Amino acid sequence: MVTIDDVKNAAKVLDGVARKTDLIYSPAFSTNGEIYLKTENLQLTGSFKLRGAYNKIASLTEEEKAKGLIACSAGNHAQGVAYAASKCGAKSVICMPASAPISKVEATKALGAEAVLVPGAYDDAHDEADRLQKEHGYTMILPFDDPYVIAGQGTIGLEILEQLPDADAVITPIGGGGLLAGVATAVKAINPSCKVYGVQAEGASAMYQSFRKGTKVATDTVATFADGIAVKNPGDLTYEIIRDKVDDIVTVSEDEIAAAILALIEKQKLIAEGAGATPVAAVLFDKIPTGGRKTVCVVSGGNIDVNILNRVISRGLIMNDRKITITVEMDDKHGRLLDACGIISGCGANVLDVRHNRGKRGIALSSCLVTFELETRDAEQTQQIMQSLREGGYIPRLEE
Amino acid sequence: MVTIDDVKNAAKVLDGVARKTDLIYSPAFSTNGEIYLKTENLQLTGSFKLRGAYNKIASLTEEEKAKGLIACSAGNHAQGVAYAASKCGAKSVICMPASAPISKVEATKALGAEAVLVPGAYDDAHDEADRLQKEHGYTMILPFDDPYVIAGQGTIGLEILEQLPDADAVITPIGGGGLLAGVATAVKAINPSCKVYGVQAEGASAMYQSFRKGTKVATDTVATFADGIAVKNPGDLTYEIIRDKVDDIVTVSEDEIAAAILALIEKQKLIAEGAGATPVAAVLFDKIPTGGRKTVCVVSGGNIDVNILNRVISRGLIMNDRKITITVEMDDKHGRLLDACGIISGCGANVLDVRHNRGKRGIALSSCLVTFELETRDAEQTQQIMQSLREGGYIPRLEE
Repeated sequence: MVTIDDVKNAAKVLDGVARKTDLIYSPAFSTNGEIYLKTENLQLTGSFKLRGAYNKIASLTEEEKAKGLIACSAGNHAQGVAYAASKCGAKSVICMPASAPISKVEATKALGAEAVLVPGAYDDAHDEADRLQKEHGYTMILPFDDPYVIAGQGTIGLEILEQLPDADAVITPIGGGGLLAGVATAVKAINPSCKVYGVQAEGASAMYQSFRKGTKVATDTVATFADGIAVKNPGDLTYEIIRDKVDDIVTVSEDEIAAAILALIEKQKLIAEGAGATPVAAVLFDKIPTGGRKTVCVVSGGNIDVNILNRVISRGLIMNDRKITITVEMDDKHGRLLDACGIISGCGANVLDVRHNRGKRGIALSSCLVTFELETRDAEQTQQIMQSLREGGYIPRLEE
Repeated sequence: MVTIDDVKNAAKVLDGVARKTDLIYSPAFSTNGEIYLKTENLQLTGSFKLRGAYNKIASLTEEEKAKGLIACSAGNHAQGVAYAASKCGAKSVICMPASAPISKVEATKALGAEAVLVPGAYDDAHDEADRLQKEHGYTMILPFDDPYVIAGQGTIGLEILEQLPDADAVITPIGGGGLLAGVATAVKAINPSCKVYGVQAEGASAMYQSFRKGTKVATDTVATFADGIAVKNPGDLTYEIIRDKVDDIVTVSEDEIAAAILALIEKQKLIAEGAGATPVAAVLFDKIPTGGRKTVCVVSGGNIDVNILNRVISRGLIMNDRKITITVEMDDKHGRLLDACGIISGCGANVLDVRHNRGKRGIALSSCLVTFELETRDAEQTQQIMQSLREGGYIPRLEE
């Protein structure tokens, strides 16, 4: 087990290494109770992971550190171990799937680790890490199922209760469970009446299922864009701690996570990765009671690939009627396109793209379909454009 | 003039109202000297503006506050005044151009102000604010050219030197000059050897030109997507303070600002608006010497429209070879598109869009042009795709 003393000791070990990240009150999210954000996305390496990794590595003997460390990760654990090992003056080798985003590989190397790109999936990288560990006598740094790692993540719970002593609830994401187990250990020891909740993606809900069933289960597959919590097999130790100490676990959908990422950008000016946005998603979509309480959402990390970020924003714009696609059938003759463009422009929308389609089944030979992709302000402006096109004699169709 | 005592008094007035925003060391930006970020984008209302607005409003008589306040702004000043007025229990009326993004209008209303949408440009909204001020006896809250406003913004300088007493340089954006004048007043009084710099957009450089010429000049037009600093006519008081106390002013281009926004997202997990990213742009593009120094960039705000943010990210992806467009001429016959798709897929790229063009001048009747929009990892993968297509018998062209 992990005790509050282990967490307090980790806090001493991490002093001057990990940032004591800011706890920010969010007026925008506080529509039902007070919502605070623990900004671990602003932690060094862009996630909380270095806390556990550093606490573990600092506990090793000089001989172990001299032989070197190994880990397997495509994401935040890679950067956490790389940073922590460099700080401790130890060599680290990180096995990463060859498909890992180049930005994460480069970031891991920049923090001083040797990155080994392994063809295949995560499991192949894991096998290669096991092989290298045995061959070279490296020490394996596990991502979550280790008491030192759990105690390191638990320092977030200590900091939260220093920063907001009367917090009523703390919510963290769950992948393998290291963060939640550590935070629950710290929070429940200091203030047993403070609630502790975990959040999983619907498509990666092994700990949620385990918690419900009362026995640890693994899933065969994971399906979520929140790669930081896409874990099939929760930890044994983390499961036991969570079963004993955590008040509840909920799940959120992919669209809810995307909406939370967009809300964090617009309302709080913070970039969260999918995993890091799940506690805010749980609050925004009423999965956890917050009324009359002070609730802290741990924004665990911000390492989201910009390509994915761009898609999340686009999707959010579409869902909020701020990017729309309208298809209009019109006579294929001189002046009609200009006329339709004039109507759209008169409503104040920006045209992003126009496409003509003359060959579609069911369209008269003398007609064509014109598809406009538009940048709009809101649903009201969208309705205004639709109405004006109708008044101009067109039959516009808003694409879903 | 504005003195250090005015700034210290403002700090007392703002205690418990404005957030003492975090000062974050940035390893990623510290390639030449140490770079720190003063995160005023995480300030309440998403920008520093409430500091000056609150300090001004708190200085008014009860009678003035009872009559109500008025301001003209399409952006951060609107939200700053709305928030500060509500905190002081005063009514506020904000004249905004009718074209202002709906998100900013809604945010201003949500903070308790009455928003008056004025048809036309900023100048029209300004005239309407003047008219309403005279008609109702409101007190006008100026955005920058007011000693209380300048002293309020100066509290950022005080906080920086509390948080990093041995800072060697501080860089702020400049619109009308209130932020820079306030920060220079505070910093130079406490540590005259600490350098103070300002940054403007190339397309809105009135203060830069004034500083170079030694006399205040206004410009006829402004052209920058950094709307927070798109100011034609600098303040008189702010100009005098800046002329006397600031070490240098530089300008940055639109692309440099966009690159800084993307870098802040990827490396620091922070959303900055165009204005807020200019100090980081000046550092990244070597406009200001940072070697061997501790330099603080004031990230002044994060209120960027998501539509614009999406474009900035897209542009950054294109500039970093992570989103590319390749056009291939191919025989218009069965199996060729499948073959080309197979080659691209084999290189590990994602296809975002495909378009056929059969009618283009100069294309043989039996050929067609196929344009692929692809999501790629880096320039190396782009070259690999080009090479593989050539080896497959195609003549690919990479669009600029």
